[in-house]
Amino acid sequence: MGFNKMCMFMLTLMLMLMWGSHGRLLSIPQKPDPDDAAASARWLVSHNFWGVLNTISADLGGAPFGNVVSYSDGLPNEGTGIPYFYLTTLDPTARNALIDEKASFTVSEYPLGTCGKRDPMNPTCSKISLTGKLKLVDEKSKETEFARNALFSKHPEMKGWPEDHNFQVFKLEIENIFLINWFGGPKPLTVEQYLHHKMNNVGFIL
Amino acid sequence: MGFNKMCMFMLTLMLMLMWGSHGRLLSIPQKPDPDDAAASARWLVSHNFWGVLNTISADLGGAPFGNVVSYSDGLPNEGTGIPYFYLTTLDPTARNALIDEKASFTVSEYPLGTCGKRDPMNPTCSKISLTGKLKLVDEKSKETEFARNALFSKHPEMKGWPEDHNFQVFKLEIENIFLINWFGGPKPLTVEQYLHHKMNNVGFIL
Repeated sequence: MGFNKMCMFMLTLMLMLMWGSHGRLLSIPQKPDPDDAAASARWLVSHNFWGVLNTISADLGGAPFGNVVSYSDGLPNEGTGIPYFYLTTLDPTARNALIDEKASFTVSEYPLGTCGKRDPMNPTCSKISLTGKLKLVDEKSKETEFARNALFSKHPEMKGWPEDHNFQVFKLEIENIFLINWFGGPKPLTVEQYLHHKMNNVGFIL
Repeated sequence: MGFNKMCMFMLTLMLMLMWGSHGRLLSIPQKPDPDDAAASARWLVSHNFWGVLNTISADLGGAPFGNVVSYSDGLPNEGTGIPYFYLTTLDPTARNALIDEKASFTVSEYPLGTCGKRDPMNPTCSKISLTGKLKLVDEKSKETEFARNALFSKHPEMKGWPEDHNFQVFKLEIENIFLINWFGGPKPLTVEQYLHHKMNNVGFIL
């Protein structure tokens, strides 16, 4: 009886630890075949939830400045491929973008937990960098309403962020895609192919 | 008897899943007090192992280009605070840096698993961006030897990367530090304070 209770306790603890450190791992659809560049890119962008947004610094001599940001490209399993962000000009990234729109957004497969023991720099642990223009979305537009729903569905915490920080919706207008998901260099992939891909959300990995 | 076996099986499975997806989680020293900016920054850089390295693109109209890279700042528990990278000019980042040295390197606490259920953009889930110059280290120098040992100790896979890719050691010469680890904006922290901090590696978190 003592062993049963201890075992159940350990199991519960493990489950809580897994959930606590990796809460989103348990419900990601199957990773696509690496040969399908559009599917791979959209899988990576739709099922991830944070990355590094890079802008030209206004105050560090024009250096490229990276910042950890959360994002969403749509409601869960309804991704559009376009990353939306919730930024405040109290932070450099938004200030930079309002002066110089050139930007890129970089996302790694590694935080999804699906790279296993492979190194984050292993080519089969996929990564994507979307380059383009980081733009403020018109506050009164339907697009902002869509984006806020998309962001809040994946980042509920955002709903409670301070109003006086004046968070606004930004989006990346994509002009170039750099995707590595296998050996042999970046996969050829146009923005059109990427945006027009229709995602197949069946199948789940643990 | 049947229940015992099943419970042990589930426990073993859970442990393997945790290890598989988060192999490095189980041995990180205690996170420092957020008021100690130098300690916090060094903790984040020394115990992490990948981030996003940002350079000025040579082929995308000068846009800031981010790339997922692995790094090391020293042997385990002997971090120097200076990130070293192992890059090939087959990849844009190294090519960009050899033309324009301006760069930043961005690291998030989130992959360490220590942010729990907090959003990656929550200020208490720390993040750091080191801005400066990305430089090729002289191949024949003691520094390259040190860096290779540091890199291979944390990224054993690198030892087997193809020789004809001509991987070389690069380092970031840091000029500015942007650290967020609590509410209230970036912590004041000079490069000198950061580099001269002596790390206290006692205590472990699960």
